[in-house]
Amino acid sequence: MVESPRIYTAALIVIGDEILSGRTQDKNIAQVAGWLGVQGIRLKEVRVVPDVTEAIADAVNTLRARHDYLFTTGGIGPTHDDITVDAIAEALGVGVVVHPEARAILEGYYEARGGLTDARLRMARVPEGAELIPNRYTGAPGIRFDNIFIMAGVPQITAGMLDALSGQLEGGLPLLSETVGCWIQESEVADLLRETEEAHGSCQIGSYPFWKDGRTGANFVIRSVDAEDLAACTRDLAAGLDAIGKPAIAGGI
Amino acid sequence: MVESPRIYTAALIVIGDEILSGRTQDKNIAQVAGWLGVQGIRLKEVRVVPDVTEAIADAVNTLRARHDYLFTTGGIGPTHDDITVDAIAEALGVGVVVHPEARAILEGYYEARGGLTDARLRMARVPEGAELIPNRYTGAPGIRFDNIFIMAGVPQITAGMLDALSGQLEGGLPLLSETVGCWIQESEVADLLRETEEAHGSCQIGSYPFWKDGRTGANFVIRSVDAEDLAACTRDLAAGLDAIGKPAIAGGI
Repeated sequence: MVESPRIYTAALIVIGDEILSGRTQDKNIAQVAGWLGVQGIRLKEVRVVPDVTEAIADAVNTLRARHDYLFTTGGIGPTHDDITVDAIAEALGVGVVVHPEARAILEGYYEARGGLTDARLRMARVPEGAELIPNRYTGAPGIRFDNIFIMAGVPQITAGMLDALSGQLEGGLPLLSETVGCWIQESEVADLLRETEEAHGSCQIGSYPFWKDGRTGANFVIRSVDAEDLAACTRDLAAGLDAIGKPAIAGGI
Repeated sequence: MVESPRIYTAALIVIGDEILSGRTQDKNIAQVAGWLGVQGIRLKEVRVVPDVTEAIADAVNTLRARHDYLFTTGGIGPTHDDITVDAIAEALGVGVVVHPEARAILEGYYEARGGLTDARLRMARVPEGAELIPNRYTGAPGIRFDNIFIMAGVPQITAGMLDALSGQLEGGLPLLSETVGCWIQESEVADLLRETEEAHGSCQIGSYPFWKDGRTGANFVIRSVDAEDLAACTRDLAAGLDAIGKPAIAGGI
């Protein structure tokens, strides 16, 4: 009997009124999702919550229990609207302390930038017992507490923190994917998609229609942890499209 | 005694594995958020869930009870991975029926496009008792059931459906906002921001740092339902920035 490989899952909480007001287009969901995929960890749910302690704490306690890993982005800067650390400490039932290493990092970073003020020192505050995640861009570190990873909201800084975590987290088999594009209405091939998916037990096929230059097309994304079955499923789908006179475009449109 | 104006709230559920895999950059959160703001409705939370019946149904039942309005995007197309209607019907405890008007719309739309197949007829299925939301682009309508608005995932089609709903929903006072930009590190003005916010009870100030062309800046967004207090708060913040020799840039950077 072959044991099923363990699947590692994660959730993401995006914290910030600027996302919920529509002012800022979130880029961290796609960025964190793509990075997790490479680590062999599946992003299973995302919540966007406002800068409100209770909303953050509730989401943290629900999601940290439900998944192997929980990531948060946003709300760890120096200003009054940055309440993520306090809200998460409250969720965890621990105090907030100044982390000595974070303080030292900030002292170094701000030495030539006007010195470490009280506001800047806020960025050294962590839930008691936490470790740091390096920030290569602006000094102020991210924070790890147990299975929770607290990261910046500015996408470039988040990217640096993710990079620092690459290869550090235990994951499972990465979810592989292939894309097949076709100039077709997806409704023409609904049966083909369903039947091809059913014939390849390890695979899931997603269908993503679009309109471009006045033409209707769709990309079909096949996902699996089994490279052989993925290749076979992709071949069968492409052959099925070719058979109805709609050429499959490898890699998608 | 002046009664506080009622605040109308909404939640959004983004449905789709393509967002959670990082393949597709979501655009509907910002789009729906901005549209709601104009209607005088505040987006208070967003959840991104996979194409899994239980995940969709759980989110729907939690959020429809908690807010005046619930919007969903994604999963209402013709293929096997489009399960939103079934999942929401399950959440509501109602059956799924073919809506006669939706069927007629689809018959018209597909008359010159190969006819109404079984797969295409899937897009006329609604939770029993639902009404339709017009789709000006591709025929297949959105769906309204009580306070739930079920919309397409393709952002252009979502936009058309939102447009059809403009002015139809009861809302409160729109949340007004002003933006002040400044070439400054936000940590230099943390106290100014907090004190200015405290002096203007109706206002909230968000601070959004960025790096551009090697320079550090921040945009400060002031939000209020009170136009006078908003203007006064914006003036005070700009004056505070000018006073420390960092010119305020009206409208943001």
